[in-house]
Amino acid sequence: MHYTSIQNDKMKKLHKLSQKKYRDAISLFLVEGEHLVLEAYKQGVLEEVFLKEGEIFSIDVPISYVNEKVMKYISQLDSPPPILGLCHKYDKAKLGNRILVLEDIQDPGNIGTMIRSSVAFGVDSIVVTKKTADVYSSKAIRASQGMLFYVSIFEMEIEQLVPILKKNKIPIIGTKVNGGKMLKDIEKFSKFAIIMGNEGLGVTQKTLDVCDTYLYIPMQKQCESLNVGVAASIILYELDKKESYE
Amino acid sequence: MHYTSIQNDKMKKLHKLSQKKYRDAISLFLVEGEHLVLEAYKQGVLEEVFLKEGEIFSIDVPISYVNEKVMKYISQLDSPPPILGLCHKYDKAKLGNRILVLEDIQDPGNIGTMIRSSVAFGVDSIVVTKKTADVYSSKAIRASQGMLFYVSIFEMEIEQLVPILKKNKIPIIGTKVNGGKMLKDIEKFSKFAIIMGNEGLGVTQKTLDVCDTYLYIPMQKQCESLNVGVAASIILYELDKKESYE
Repeated sequence: MHYTSIQNDKMKKLHKLSQKKYRDAISLFLVEGEHLVLEAYKQGVLEEVFLKEGEIFSIDVPISYVNEKVMKYISQLDSPPPILGLCHKYDKAKLGNRILVLEDIQDPGNIGTMIRSSVAFGVDSIVVTKKTADVYSSKAIRASQGMLFYVSIFEMEIEQLVPILKKNKIPIIGTKVNGGKMLKDIEKFSKFAIIMGNEGLGVTQKTLDVCDTYLYIPMQKQCESLNVGVAASIILYELDKKESYE
Repeated sequence: MHYTSIQNDKMKKLHKLSQKKYRDAISLFLVEGEHLVLEAYKQGVLEEVFLKEGEIFSIDVPISYVNEKVMKYISQLDSPPPILGLCHKYDKAKLGNRILVLEDIQDPGNIGTMIRSSVAFGVDSIVVTKKTADVYSSKAIRASQGMLFYVSIFEMEIEQLVPILKKNKIPIIGTKVNGGKMLKDIEKFSKFAIIMGNEGLGVTQKTLDVCDTYLYIPMQKQCESLNVGVAASIILYELDKKESYE
């Protein structure tokens, strides 16, 4: 197929995928650029490719061509890449044993960074609360470097999650700027659910109340806190190190 | 003073501070929002405050009022805060012993995050190469959460830096995705210069050639690399931990 008009119904549909509401409704999302298209393909979630006229790309899913105007219309980036992929959200596996919980995280870059670090350090499941920004936004997927496809994502409120964790004897670990155990002193965990809170507010008191353990990362006194993506990554690094190498 | 026109020469000057070239030429930069204005004040670099008409703020540097149009003109943000501060770059102290080197880092968010983590983990000096994006951009300062004011910043090429490091017997530590020592196994360093490379390219070969030690952060095989801000933060965390708590 060759699309040259932004009035085309299918192109309108792709354009609307910039909205979380629409992504949720039809369980599809876009990835932009060759690297992400290939990662999506490897994981079997790639449905169709949209290529700028004149570009060459070979892959065994349907390929359609679009002109520059249409590419600008369907892309969510200021400088659209020459290739977009339409993907389906995959069926969720069962919640795993090494879980990162994102409670009301606002910045898509932070979300993507945490997904990338999660895969680096052996997390198998990511739980996002309703108030967390969408993991399927173009920005979050780019920041994840396609690592999104290597973890199971669950949208769930903390109240729904806690009974499942308790039943499966998965310790709930809350993070505080101060208080609790110093990160380096925590024991080895083969199962865990780490809770990371909103950029400005931290983990909510309600959620801290249901945690089994608390930990903090010691730092010099001039600095009040770390970027949430950095804090999560340091914690996951330390847990993975204890599990794998000590 | 009360400014109501974007034709005013002083307002034009503030507007031009969005350009690195101009910030370099006059050694001034802007910070946006109350938190950063107060951090700048605490460090003695705040020269003047620009407040939106109708706002109240008390501080012992000159305060000028601007209307909404002028605020939008001088701010570098889509949604300008009600307060901006004009700051001077401070005189550089001598290069310290705990140094983070940013070689050609492109993303201002990554730069700010690394500055924030540097202060958290006891780095005293940050060296940026000419190709690194400006640490005094509005985005980088915001991502640093004002921690910029707690480290000494030096703009210097690697070739200029290396002789100083060698003379002061400061070990140069290069980071690689693979190869070198596993991070957890590196010895304690009371002096170090950690080199972090460009987001896409990593540390240049030329720079790797002058390093004394190499290290890497072990990770699961699905993930090729970490976000550069995350990688730097994990390394600094581990070095600070060894120095302070082991």
